[in-house]
Amino acid sequence: MKRRDFFKNGLLTTMGLGIMGSRPVLAKPSMYKGEQAKNIIFLVSDGMSSGTLNMADILMRHKMGKTSNWISLYESNTVKRSLMDTASANSFVTDSAAAGSAWGGGHRVNNGALNISPSGQEHEPILQKFKAQGKAVGCVTSVQITHATPASFCVNQTSRSAMPAIAEDYLKLKFDVMMGGGREFFDPNRRTDKRDLFTEFSKNGFHVANNKEEMSKADGSKPLLGVFTEDGLPYAIDRENDANLKKTVPSLAEMTGKCIEVLSKNPNGFVMQVEGGKVDWAAHGNDATALLYDQVDFDEAVGVAMDFALKDKNTLVIITTDHGNSNPGLFNPGPKNIKFESLYEAKASNQHILNAITPENSTSQVIDMINHQLNVALEKEEAENLLKSFQVGADGLYNPGNLPFAYFAEILSRHNGVSFAHTNHSGDYVELATYGPGSEKLPGFVKNYELHNFMLEAAGVERKW
Amino acid sequence: MKRRDFFKNGLLTTMGLGIMGSRPVLAKPSMYKGEQAKNIIFLVSDGMSSGTLNMADILMRHKMGKTSNWISLYESNTVKRSLMDTASANSFVTDSAAAGSAWGGGHRVNNGALNISPSGQEHEPILQKFKAQGKAVGCVTSVQITHATPASFCVNQTSRSAMPAIAEDYLKLKFDVMMGGGREFFDPNRRTDKRDLFTEFSKNGFHVANNKEEMSKADGSKPLLGVFTEDGLPYAIDRENDANLKKTVPSLAEMTGKCIEVLSKNPNGFVMQVEGGKVDWAAHGNDATALLYDQVDFDEAVGVAMDFALKDKNTLVIITTDHGNSNPGLFNPGPKNIKFESLYEAKASNQHILNAITPENSTSQVIDMINHQLNVALEKEEAENLLKSFQVGADGLYNPGNLPFAYFAEILSRHNGVSFAHTNHSGDYVELATYGPGSEKLPGFVKNYELHNFMLEAAGVERKW
Repeated sequence: MKRRDFFKNGLLTTMGLGIMGSRPVLAKPSMYKGEQAKNIIFLVSDGMSSGTLNMADILMRHKMGKTSNWISLYESNTVKRSLMDTASANSFVTDSAAAGSAWGGGHRVNNGALNISPSGQEHEPILQKFKAQGKAVGCVTSVQITHATPASFCVNQTSRSAMPAIAEDYLKLKFDVMMGGGREFFDPNRRTDKRDLFTEFSKNGFHVANNKEEMSKADGSKPLLGVFTEDGLPYAIDRENDANLKKTVPSLAEMTGKCIEVLSKNPNGFVMQVEGGKVDWAAHGNDATALLYDQVDFDEAVGVAMDFALKDKNTLVIITTDHGNSNPGLFNPGPKNIKFESLYEAKASNQHILNAITPENSTSQVIDMINHQLNVALEKEEAENLLKSFQVGADGLYNPGNLPFAYFAEILSRHNGVSFAHTNHSGDYVELATYGPGSEKLPGFVKNYELHNFMLEAAGVERKW
Repeated sequence: MKRRDFFKNGLLTTMGLGIMGSRPVLAKPSMYKGEQAKNIIFLVSDGMSSGTLNMADILMRHKMGKTSNWISLYESNTVKRSLMDTASANSFVTDSAAAGSAWGGGHRVNNGALNISPSGQEHEPILQKFKAQGKAVGCVTSVQITHATPASFCVNQTSRSAMPAIAEDYLKLKFDVMMGGGREFFDPNRRTDKRDLFTEFSKNGFHVANNKEEMSKADGSKPLLGVFTEDGLPYAIDRENDANLKKTVPSLAEMTGKCIEVLSKNPNGFVMQVEGGKVDWAAHGNDATALLYDQVDFDEAVGVAMDFALKDKNTLVIITTDHGNSNPGLFNPGPKNIKFESLYEAKASNQHILNAITPENSTSQVIDMINHQLNVALEKEEAENLLKSFQVGADGLYNPGNLPFAYFAEILSRHNGVSFAHTNHSGDYVELATYGPGSEKLPGFVKNYELHNFMLEAAGVERKW
């Protein structure tokens, strides 16, 4: 299931005469069969401000010569486009736990909570509801599989930080596919209770995959747990530039493809969540390279999902984000956009670079490293200041764990044209694209919690909750 | 024509059962009469990043207890919602001249140019085309009427800075309504050529209005030139809190209402542009209060336009922006959103406050003034640093013309939760809402220059250009 199939089988084979002339426009009525969705694929680019979506699209158009899948769906009028209010119960600015819970449980909760209301009421998570209806269910993510966004579709927990307990919840829930990072929450050497959850999952009937090859061997005869790294998966740009990572760690699109392959064996249909979780981490780190290439990585997963949905004709696809983050933008692209173009040849995340810098590095070594990895030439003074920014406290202690992300981004903004407003979530209303049964009726503005019943209704599941 | 009529006559009288239950949904086919638009109202909130739109909506919902008109149109599925690529011929990040020219002339030009291509070719401006077809045409704006955005629908000029020449162009074009600021470009005492354009406009058959009262007297028997201030109009928040300004300077909604009143007398229909130009200026100044209240001011104009269109049923309404600016966002609203709520009681723009601060002010006076005007209590150190930031150069010269906008915004962000990524335009794809004949066929993603032919086609004007 190659991503390009989306174009081959999707848009281009159904070209019509759009208002702009040769632009492909899909005719809605022929696209899906009935009024109800048998399957739902819910894709979340976590913490995606609008600038993230459109800078990634500009990058893809100019570097790769193709439009992003997400924007293609707008361009071809294939999806309904809505704006979504992402607030939580206690703030205009949500965290991922409360945002995911709004979708997952149908109610706004306080930041940090997973499907437990401020008064302590538990809201049944949506994948438990669909599982009870006989559908196959699953989640894949580029961060820990126990992280807030996948957990918000699966469990009730007072705090998102209870990731060891969430791993135990997954053992009991026995969902069909759960894949991402977060080995530390399954590993007896890392868990304070010393439980070996990997062995317990195996004993409970799971196929446990520790790497991409083991994932590929899963044939759907058993539930699949895939845990590929200690914490989050590497950034896409770092994975693609490291032969070992590329061999062992699947991309979000590969996980999505495998998840669809396994879940679609269920004759009653399936519901799954796909999270591009490291888009959010890159935004927190004001890491433009990591951000845009992880958004591209997410976009490939969108292609896989749409490829399936366009063939299947019974699948509701929801493509969105849970909140904005840092509101990045391209402000100073330079003459002929040369500054922004530096990103086309970037080979590493800022995080990778900052981790590689040591106290022994000279200014010229730092300049060379950054020139090689990011295709930009720092001024001597900038490199000196960057090196100094690692020094913490009067005793000059070197502290690699406290990396100067925001300061590095500020320096780089002069070279790549990208600036950030903050290092945290924003209260922005966000993009929501929907395709398939029910989507055409969705209003152009919705509140995040409304998607819960929208999914239940689109799938024709009785609202008895 | 009160803004509230929009709701009374529009949405609420046509309530239907939406997918979310009681949400009003308008049935498209009954909304407008035919395939072609007799009239076009093109509304531009200049330099509106997505955060500007949604923070203003949050402000309106929580301060005023009503949804913004723009978001209401999404919520009720009344408009087609698209995303627009705003690039210019020579940059991913456009200025207002090139962005307006893409719409106005149908071709991308270099930043700074008005409907003249990089090779020198002139593109006929859209209001000239519509005027030649017998339609009434006009522009209203909250900045100089000679400024880039209105000029881009009217004239050809190598440089947007040729505002004295643009005023002369307007004299020759004799369009039906032109209103905004920019007295300096008409005033013999301010023009280097000493021409008295006000007298020349009068002699050429115009009704010339210098204030709101004179504007109200225009009866449509003559073309109307309204020029109300020296440069741009005051920010809406400053106008509303100054009895004299409120009496003499019309709001954007009032200009829009008058413009529709005059132009709609033409039996062949009309085409007009409405620009909320000071939204852009406030974004450049990272002036959160000015920004949000000017966006509200623009939204009132949207209400007036929609009120007309919903009754008329032959009007295409386009609501958009020309580019993002500064990508503001609400990042730290505080417990119970108390920080953001400070904006609900704000009484002045940052510009007004910074202009009012003098070298003689004490720290406590600055704290008192800001507390009174912006409803936030600065720390003593913040007020001290703000006062120091006015000092320019080693000789301590005070320079009120070089106001410390960005620094003040940074201080205020700790109190109102709003941060900005930059002080200039962004390359963001932007919001585009369309209502009326032709709108339902518009793709979900368009390039700015495509709107030119879209308007001509929607109005059934032959494409002979």
